[in-house]
Order: sequence, then structure tokens, then C-alpha cells
Amino acid sequence: MPTLVLLRHGQSQWNLENRFTGWWDVDLTDLGVEEARAAGRLLTTRGLDFDCCFTSLQSRAIRTLNLVLEEMGRLWLPVTKDWRLNERHYGGLTGLNKQEMIDKVGAEQVKIWRRSFDIPPPPLESGSQFDVAQDRRYAGLPVPNTESLKDTIARALPYFQAEIAPALKAGKRVIVAAHGNSLRALEKHLSNIGDDEIVGLEIPTGQPIVYELGDDLSVKDRYYLSERA
Amino acid sequence: MPTLVLLRHGQSQWNLENRFTGWWDVDLTDLGVEEARAAGRLLTTRGLDFDCCFTSLQSRAIRTLNLVLEEMGRLWLPVTKDWRLNERHYGGLTGLNKQEMIDKVGAEQVKIWRRSFDIPPPPLESGSQFDVAQDRRYAGLPVPNTESLKDTIARALPYFQAEIAPALKAGKRVIVAAHGNSLRALEKHLSNIGDDEIVGLEIPTGQPIVYELGDDLSVKDRYYLSERA
Repeated sequence: MPTLVLLRHGQSQWNLENRFTGWWDVDLTDLGVEEARAAGRLLTTRGLDFDCCFTSLQSRAIRTLNLVLEEMGRLWLPVTKDWRLNERHYGGLTGLNKQEMIDKVGAEQVKIWRRSFDIPPPPLESGSQFDVAQDRRYAGLPVPNTESLKDTIARALPYFQAEIAPALKAGKRVIVAAHGNSLRALEKHLSNIGDDEIVGLEIPTGQPIVYELGDDLSVKDRYYLSERA
Repeated sequence: MPTLVLLRHGQSQWNLENRFTGWWDVDLTDLGVEEARAAGRLLTTRGLDFDCCFTSLQSRAIRTLNLVLEEMGRLWLPVTKDWRLNERHYGGLTGLNKQEMIDKVGAEQVKIWRRSFDIPPPPLESGSQFDVAQDRRYAGLPVPNTESLKDTIARALPYFQAEIAPALKAGKRVIVAAHGNSLRALEKHLSNIGDDEIVGLEIPTGQPIVYELGDDLSVKDRYYLSERA
């Protein structure tokens, strides 16, 4: 039975500071490191194992995966890194403390940008200190300067279909270490969640989500590993 | 100019205990972790950078690479892991304290096994606690049960030619994080070192070795990064 584990990275420094992060490459906090290690230990004690791994080009997700694999004694597994699993690009909200943003433009506007399915925030200004357009890791790639959740899905889901789904259909056990919104994209597709509902789906940091799938990748079961005995 | 950096993993637990390690998957010591981080910082301050990375299937080399990339802010680089970069398989010597071995069979015999170019130690006994033949990571691979240095070269060098040399010729900057003997294989080839001489080449842990190469991969310069101002 194909098994897919989704894992949001452990707590990052900007999770802690309540800032919009998006494509800015913020590191894990000490708690985030421990969340990742705990996830690796939980996966091991529950007997889950993997054949291949996918992650984004962002350090907080890659480090989370590395720490999980270290705890599992599975550092040797192949790891594929791709920008299409990156976090949603929060455009002009990047770097802002969420409370400051609320104070500035009002809670309703922030909620619209954060929670609308298809309305992106204003684009990140060129020359912003948080602009990654010149970052070598994204050279030659169609780097966005803002994204709605719909936009994030529009690049994450084709990646799932092209790279991850074939591995699952080949019987491989897969872990994807990624971000709140790129994982929402996968959950929306797998669990057939509506546009209005997906924006409210909260994915906690460092908690392995297990999908048990049929051969056609239909969902047989979906659960947080920590919530099953 | 193609640049290749070779890096032996940081100190492992069995380096510290002076045991023959080979294919047994021993972890880094705290010193080994710090050696790896220091290598990453040194590479950064000297302005070296990479486009792709190669390592073995052994945790001590993979962790070393991960720590280097973390310090460099380069966790996003592609990493290829392959058994052909593994350490020499020390056969029946695996797990033995070097002093115990000398006490048992004599220093001369140990020196012959360790230092001969083409005489392998006796094979690891099937069922040994250090036998990795059943380890899933090596499933389907031609796992040795002992190797001479010549045997190690016979699988490491074709891997270099097939996978690493083309990347260098394409202008990519490459780091290889591996082991004393798989790196000897590459150094022997690149620097055209004789059979008798290569067995005496000591490669220290955690010290980046820089090869500046011509387009035909001829060696223009080779040095320990820590020894250049």
C-alpha cells in the first residue's frame, strides 16, 4: 500500500516572531530542531520507513528532513529538492510582523490576503531586503513576487503529479518535508478539499501526517501520527 | 576553471577508538561535528562555493556534508549519494581495535592488510555483527565483504569518471564528502600517484582539499585550504 508522510518544518525563527516568511530563508529555532528530531523518533518507533524523500529549496524544510533522517538512521535515502515545494510567496507581506501589519492596514485586509484562496498580497517591491530574485538557488526559475494559495497550488500540484505520484504508484514509501501552504496544496488534492475550506486548514509544525493510499492514490486513511496509539 | 573540493568526514567514534570502520555506519563524534562545521565556515570565508555535491551512503560522510552546507547557507544544493564513494571495506578487520589486532596477528600482518595496495584482509564472516549485506541501503548492489585499496579504486574511479568528471567538465563547482580510501582513489587518479605511494597518503579528517583543474581536468593546483593564506 503506497504510504505518503507529509511533514511541515519545525518552528522557524519567524514562526516564533509571528512574521510572514514565505520565500525568505529563515532558520529553525532550537524548538524547531527538537520538533524535527522528535518527528524522526516518532516515525521510527511507529515503524514507518521511507524509500525516497522530497523537500523544498528552503533551509527550514531541508534541515527538518535531515534531522528526521538522522534520527531514523536514514541519512542515506535519496532526497530531491525542488522550488515547487517552497512556501507560498507572501509578496509585500514578507518580513512583516503580523500584528504590525494588522495595525497598519487593518485585520480584515490582512485576513483577506492571508485567507483568500485566489487574492495575492501586493507584490514584493523590487530591491526589498527580502527579495530572492537574485538568489542563485532560483536562477533560471520563474520566481514569483507574490502568490495567492491558488498560485502556490498551481506550481506545487503539477510537481506532485510529475515526481511524487509516480514514486508512490511504483510502491515507494515517500516523505515530503515542506511548508504550510505547499502541503495544503497536496492535502487539498489528495483529500479533495474545497477552495473555501483549504484556507482554514492549519498544519502544525513538526507533526507527521500519514496518508495511506490505494494503488490509484485514493485516500484510505489520513491521520496525525502522534494522535494514533 | 573547474574546481573540485575533496573532504574526508569529521572524526568518527571509531576514528577516536582506533577501530577499523570500513562499511560499518559509525557516527561522528562531537569533535567530528565541529570539524565539519569549521570546514563549512572556512569554505565560506575563503569564497569557495559549489553547484553540486557528492557523498557516500555512510552517515559520517553525509552528516559532514550536511553540516558544511548548513554553515555555508547551501543546504539547497543538489546532493548525490552513492555506495561507490563508501569507505574501503575492511573485511574481517571491521570493528577491531587496531591495537588488539596488532596484539593478535602482529604489526607486520596488520600493516600488510592496511597498507598493501592489492592484498585485501580476510573477508568479513557471514553473520558478523558488522555484516551490512542485509542492510536495505545496499539492496541489489554488489556489496563487497572485503576490499584492497585497489578494489576500492576499481569502483570509486569509474564513479568519478561517470558522474563527477562530467559535472566538472560542464563547469560545475563540485564538493565530494567521502572517506580516506575513496578519496585516495580520486587523488591517485587526479594527481597520478603510484600504487606504492598512494597507500601512504594520509588524508586528515575535516580538511577541505582544493583541486584547481584545467578544462581537461588536469591538475593546475592542489592544496589544503587551511594551509593557504
